[in-house]
Amino acid sequence: MKEENFRAVWWEGGKIALLDQNQLPQRETPSFVDSVEDLADAIMTMKVRGAPAIGIAAAYGVALAAWGKEDPQASALRACDLLARTRPTAVNLFWSLQRMRDVIARSGREDMGPEELKKALLEEAEMIAQEQDQADRLIGKHGASLLPAGCRALTHCNAGGLATLSFGTALGVIKTAYQEGKLSKVWVDETRPLLQGSRLTAWELEKCGIPYTVICDNMAGFAMSRGEVDAVVVGADRIARNGDTANKIGTYSLAVLARHHDIPLYVAAPLSTLDLSIADGGDIVIEERSPGEVGEYRGIKTVPEGAQVWNPAFDITPASLITAIVTEAGVAYPPFAEELGKWAGKGDE
Amino acid sequence: MKEENFRAVWWEGGKIALLDQNQLPQRETPSFVDSVEDLADAIMTMKVRGAPAIGIAAAYGVALAAWGKEDPQASALRACDLLARTRPTAVNLFWSLQRMRDVIARSGREDMGPEELKKALLEEAEMIAQEQDQADRLIGKHGASLLPAGCRALTHCNAGGLATLSFGTALGVIKTAYQEGKLSKVWVDETRPLLQGSRLTAWELEKCGIPYTVICDNMAGFAMSRGEVDAVVVGADRIARNGDTANKIGTYSLAVLARHHDIPLYVAAPLSTLDLSIADGGDIVIEERSPGEVGEYRGIKTVPEGAQVWNPAFDITPASLITAIVTEAGVAYPPFAEELGKWAGKGDE
Repeated sequence: MKEENFRAVWWEGGKIALLDQNQLPQRETPSFVDSVEDLADAIMTMKVRGAPAIGIAAAYGVALAAWGKEDPQASALRACDLLARTRPTAVNLFWSLQRMRDVIARSGREDMGPEELKKALLEEAEMIAQEQDQADRLIGKHGASLLPAGCRALTHCNAGGLATLSFGTALGVIKTAYQEGKLSKVWVDETRPLLQGSRLTAWELEKCGIPYTVICDNMAGFAMSRGEVDAVVVGADRIARNGDTANKIGTYSLAVLARHHDIPLYVAAPLSTLDLSIADGGDIVIEERSPGEVGEYRGIKTVPEGAQVWNPAFDITPASLITAIVTEAGVAYPPFAEELGKWAGKGDE
Repeated sequence: MKEENFRAVWWEGGKIALLDQNQLPQRETPSFVDSVEDLADAIMTMKVRGAPAIGIAAAYGVALAAWGKEDPQASALRACDLLARTRPTAVNLFWSLQRMRDVIARSGREDMGPEELKKALLEEAEMIAQEQDQADRLIGKHGASLLPAGCRALTHCNAGGLATLSFGTALGVIKTAYQEGKLSKVWVDETRPLLQGSRLTAWELEKCGIPYTVICDNMAGFAMSRGEVDAVVVGADRIARNGDTANKIGTYSLAVLARHHDIPLYVAAPLSTLDLSIADGGDIVIEERSPGEVGEYRGIKTVPEGAQVWNPAFDITPASLITAIVTEAGVAYPPFAEELGKWAGKGDE
């Protein structure tokens, strides 16, 4: 496999650099953000997206807010508040901001000077990024062990390096299986409305030289019915205590289709995606985004004037349709509650 | 209900007029076709689409080929050959061309003059159109009787007046149910890649004042899981002897999802869509169209350079997932073979 040679987000000379994901695959140029307000905007408009990548970007955002300031503590705290209001579903955002708040609190206790605090914030952000990358590699190993030789895997949306840092969760499983010589091809759901599959996942697979075929979301069932899919591997945006999983809209339909065809469905996600405070999927709030994402494509209208549009960004896949949940701590099988509770307990507080 | 005030295709002053369906919903202007070559191109590029509408357009095409010619018979026969090569799956195309060939054969037997033949060909085309419209109304009545009061129906692609003449099959059922006061809303699958749902079905429903909500195809399962869909109503491009149905790609996934949620799936189609020569869906050839339909939208690329794309235009829904097939002759329930055989026998030969 060719080495993936990109990062979704990084720190460069006092600025945050992003690979603008709304411009891919056409333009691959980094976009530099030098204020926390611009970063909040980049998260809301999905220049940077994917729960872990949002968490990492937000951590850098707190470091950025402190950078070069006379009173870095106050700026960093204001940044935490602002960034927490960007997107509601990404659990990793809140988890990541909590780690940055912990650094600020420690700086008070330990009486750090301004320069020391700035350094500590940046170090924590770099640490969050690095930990995510380590988690990705472990998730990849654990997940790949579940796939059969010659596997034709189907994935939805982008749970790749663009959604984490550079390797990915669901796509990390796929990349690892390919490295291990057991993956023969990837079916890439284009993933309407924003086409994270055809624009982003295909771009990553192209970079890695992994064979893939892009399909419209509505073609996945037909591919399954022809016996051409061996496993479905997806990411997660929030996993409840019982294993119910919020992920990109369309995941639930895939789960029903996979069950109908006796195809395993694997959810791959870091422990920071687990939300023990939520008993089941019924308690997860689904973000609804602008109707324009469905009703127009780059300014070209695809619905009549006055059309009503529904645009939920996520859906809930019940634990009963999930074969296994793959985390950096290992593979959990149903019923998920005990193992997930044990693992999340380690990460929490 | 507001009267639908359009026709998909009609004869006007020695030309064929089409509502160019690639331009909808932005532009609603008729496109005039004055050669059978241009008509063949319009069918292949889907300016006119939907099995019954293709059949009607082709009939007018044969009349057009004869119009104003010294030797209308030879021109009409050449037109039949050319039009038969436009699209492989639309059964109604071949059925319609056979009716036009029958007129030509009769003209020989009855020693018609050229003017008489031209008139007879145009009359036959008008008759095919008129019969389809009558079939639509009957399908509408039969189908609406199956829907519950307050029904929230989900439809896929466009099986509306644009796919027939002006009323539609699946959408005719929905329009009739609305007229009868028993339909509360329509879920419109956008239907990738060509968006016949969001561009065409939504446009028809808007014209009729029927409440609807456009969703991406991958949202249908989530709407079902929330209890917001009471019935799925779709059209058909070819129905095999046992009831297996070829229809727009995505229909099969909907059928699996509907079954999982105990929601009835109704197929609405004229008898001319039945193909007794085919035992089951395994024998139906699936048209695969250009990868560009998936990989770009009006010139904007949505996949990386070099991406492999699979673009089947149809899929097969097995009879076992179909609750009932609604035709102008009535409603058939599983096992479908006997009733379909009886009905198709009437139309055939």
